[in-house]
Amino acid sequence: MTRLIYDVSMSLDGFSAGPNQSPENPMGDGGEQLGEWRRELAAFRKKYPFAGLEGGVTNASTAVFEDDTSGAMIIGRNMFGGGHGPWGDPPWDGWWGGNPFHVPVFILTHHPREPLVPHGDQPFTFVTEGIRAALEMAQRAAAGKDVLVGGSASAAQQYLAAGLLDQIDIHLVPVFLGEGLRVFDDAALSAITLEQGRVVEAPGVTHLRFRVVR
Amino acid sequence: MTRLIYDVSMSLDGFSAGPNQSPENPMGDGGEQLGEWRRELAAFRKKYPFAGLEGGVTNASTAVFEDDTSGAMIIGRNMFGGGHGPWGDPPWDGWWGGNPFHVPVFILTHHPREPLVPHGDQPFTFVTEGIRAALEMAQRAAAGKDVLVGGSASAAQQYLAAGLLDQIDIHLVPVFLGEGLRVFDDAALSAITLEQGRVVEAPGVTHLRFRVVR
Repeated sequence: MTRLIYDVSMSLDGFSAGPNQSPENPMGDGGEQLGEWRRELAAFRKKYPFAGLEGGVTNASTAVFEDDTSGAMIIGRNMFGGGHGPWGDPPWDGWWGGNPFHVPVFILTHHPREPLVPHGDQPFTFVTEGIRAALEMAQRAAAGKDVLVGGSASAAQQYLAAGLLDQIDIHLVPVFLGEGLRVFDDAALSAITLEQGRVVEAPGVTHLRFRVVR
Repeated sequence: MTRLIYDVSMSLDGFSAGPNQSPENPMGDGGEQLGEWRRELAAFRKKYPFAGLEGGVTNASTAVFEDDTSGAMIIGRNMFGGGHGPWGDPPWDGWWGGNPFHVPVFILTHHPREPLVPHGDQPFTFVTEGIRAALEMAQRAAAGKDVLVGGSASAAQQYLAAGLLDQIDIHLVPVFLGEGLRVFDDAALSAITLEQGRVVEAPGVTHLRFRVVR
């Protein structure tokens, strides 16, 4: 059964990005610290050559990083980038020069656009019909594997509030960002029941897993 | 050397109490869930008879609960209770019928009041001269042991922002409160550097420790 999983790196004060996000500053001020645990892994550097990093370490985070059950991904417009509003001419094609995620990616947006199929990579599909339509498309594409909601706090909150998330994987990073994009900031969340899953202590991060009880 | 430690039970969405706190509802709506990991411990029930609970369990939280290095405690007016403003006549003497904490307790308040010495218990001292004065008094009273900041998010944030906290112990509870008192909600926090300490996975709670790097 395909599950819907929210995977997010979060600061101790609850942010997934710092303030002043922009095309030049996609994670916001200080936000790049949230990805450091991942970027230093040899496994990450090998899987994502776009990052331009070699070498790296192997530690308790490696097994967490490699335990990737996803067959498709849903992200918000914010994570795909290119600012707000229509896509422009030439349109923004993502931060990465291709699709680095090795799975089909579905992007929630208000602005219609033809699918983008980077040469040799899995497609980016732009979905304007809302979160349920994106989930159905991603589930078909995942072909029995899980669907990951990445990056955007607002996309994940919509899925969570709609009762559609099955699991939340939080990579808790010991930094304060002070301001930015709050991961959990919705009064409606109090209706949701969680069950604590495994905890993995690793250098500079604690990996926490929670299951949503239906 | 006396350290200043903030000890708080926090929801996954970052609250230490739910909305609608009042004398009848001291933890706010849903907030009592944050203390369940502690209340179910046999060690807690034995140490705090005021809770009126017997029996209880022993689990991975027991060692965390028993590892109490504090010799004095600082709390906010909110945790001591009795609403806002002057103390009233007869004055509010706390929720507990005595001082249940087994150490001298210093209460930050804007309203002066003589110390309260419950029969056979350690004193409650009311401090109107601010957080540094309360810390000095608590450190003297702790006589070489640690000082704990309990309960009030705003008191702890003042100590943290002033660079006076040495350690943060978070008991992360897998619930969403949706609204309430945010533990970390201050742009100035981004200036603080943390170091991750031990992690303890226990039933219904994860115990996280962070050291503040000076």
